[in-house]
Amino acid sequence: MKIGILGTGGVGRTLGAHLSAAGHDVMLAGRATPHEVGEGWAAEAPNRRYGTFADAAAHGEVVLNCTSGLHSVAAVRAAGVERLAGKVLVDVANPLDFSQGFPPSLAVGNTDSLGEQLQALAPEARVVKALNTVAASVMVAPAKLPGEHVLPLCGDDAEAKALVRGWLQAWFGWQHFVDLGPIHAARGQEAWLLLWTRLYGALGTGDFNIVLSRAPQG
Amino acid sequence: MKIGILGTGGVGRTLGAHLSAAGHDVMLAGRATPHEVGEGWAAEAPNRRYGTFADAAAHGEVVLNCTSGLHSVAAVRAAGVERLAGKVLVDVANPLDFSQGFPPSLAVGNTDSLGEQLQALAPEARVVKALNTVAASVMVAPAKLPGEHVLPLCGDDAEAKALVRGWLQAWFGWQHFVDLGPIHAARGQEAWLLLWTRLYGALGTGDFNIVLSRAPQG
Repeated sequence: MKIGILGTGGVGRTLGAHLSAAGHDVMLAGRATPHEVGEGWAAEAPNRRYGTFADAAAHGEVVLNCTSGLHSVAAVRAAGVERLAGKVLVDVANPLDFSQGFPPSLAVGNTDSLGEQLQALAPEARVVKALNTVAASVMVAPAKLPGEHVLPLCGDDAEAKALVRGWLQAWFGWQHFVDLGPIHAARGQEAWLLLWTRLYGALGTGDFNIVLSRAPQG
Repeated sequence: MKIGILGTGGVGRTLGAHLSAAGHDVMLAGRATPHEVGEGWAAEAPNRRYGTFADAAAHGEVVLNCTSGLHSVAAVRAAGVERLAGKVLVDVANPLDFSQGFPPSLAVGNTDSLGEQLQALAPEARVVKALNTVAASVMVAPAKLPGEHVLPLCGDDAEAKALVRGWLQAWFGWQHFVDLGPIHAARGQEAWLLLWTRLYGALGTGDFNIVLSRAPQG
């Protein structure tokens, strides 16, 4: 499958490494060309490439937004919303503002979300917010954690959400999803990071996720 | 034990009912006297009373803030911060704004929290943010849910947090806590409601909580 990944940070490189190892044709994208990190990453396997945001948006049958959330709107604009029309755009990013240190605040939140901003910017893209609730190490290897831990996701396009569930199962082994509804639920998925970062501090690791404990059905 | 509960809503009445049934001397408090709901609640058992916010703050060896989060600052001010000096104030409230419908937004958040506002208002009180992350039905009966589901808590006073853990275990059977650190972590605990409310919608019940799934220690 042809996959475009926006962002050359740890999340983009980690997802891209697993996807290229599984045989997919992956293009990682950054702001600039040449790009030492991106081109170095691409040189490690024949089915890896590096390109501009526009290149990756054109390349991918699906596009993963793994940019820093503070720059995601600019990245998608640079990618060209016309290149994303009809495509599934998985928004993995969080609008974390570390300018005051750790734990971060959210640059967008409460009455808006990055997921909604990207869907508004690219109305013909099929935005699905997913994977943003766990660390990159968990995104690509959910089986490392015990129990029926869950991945929330949301988006306005039911078929796109079904596709993403299937891909995340096939690519990484994700088993348990919770569909939170339309893209505005990204407000909840992104706000989770305000708790996630503090749990990270308390637990001393990002290798965790949540299992929903529910009362037995009567 | 003498317990003061600020707020006559479902959370305050539910906690108060369980605590009075366990033999504690509970005073529920509302904004006004007379108060049909509060006085009706108090009439149901001899160890239940109704009073003003100031009455309940004076009565309690520990005080539980169960008011609507939009009115908590006013309630604590009316209670009189001098009556809370040296006492543990358990902040159960969430600053949920339902003015635009469900799911709510937060009236305070991201770079501030209700927990911090109450600690700043009553600097000699020992504020512990706890129980705000679950529904009232779960607060008083954690054993109804399977697994090692957790209650996050935070506050600036380590001894106060230890006391609250002991009380919540003795009162309701809570077993698993995560100490998120100083009171500013209330930003995380309160932001969780933006996800909690959407999980509530997706699951169709408030009878749930989270188990932390962690990688086995190497």
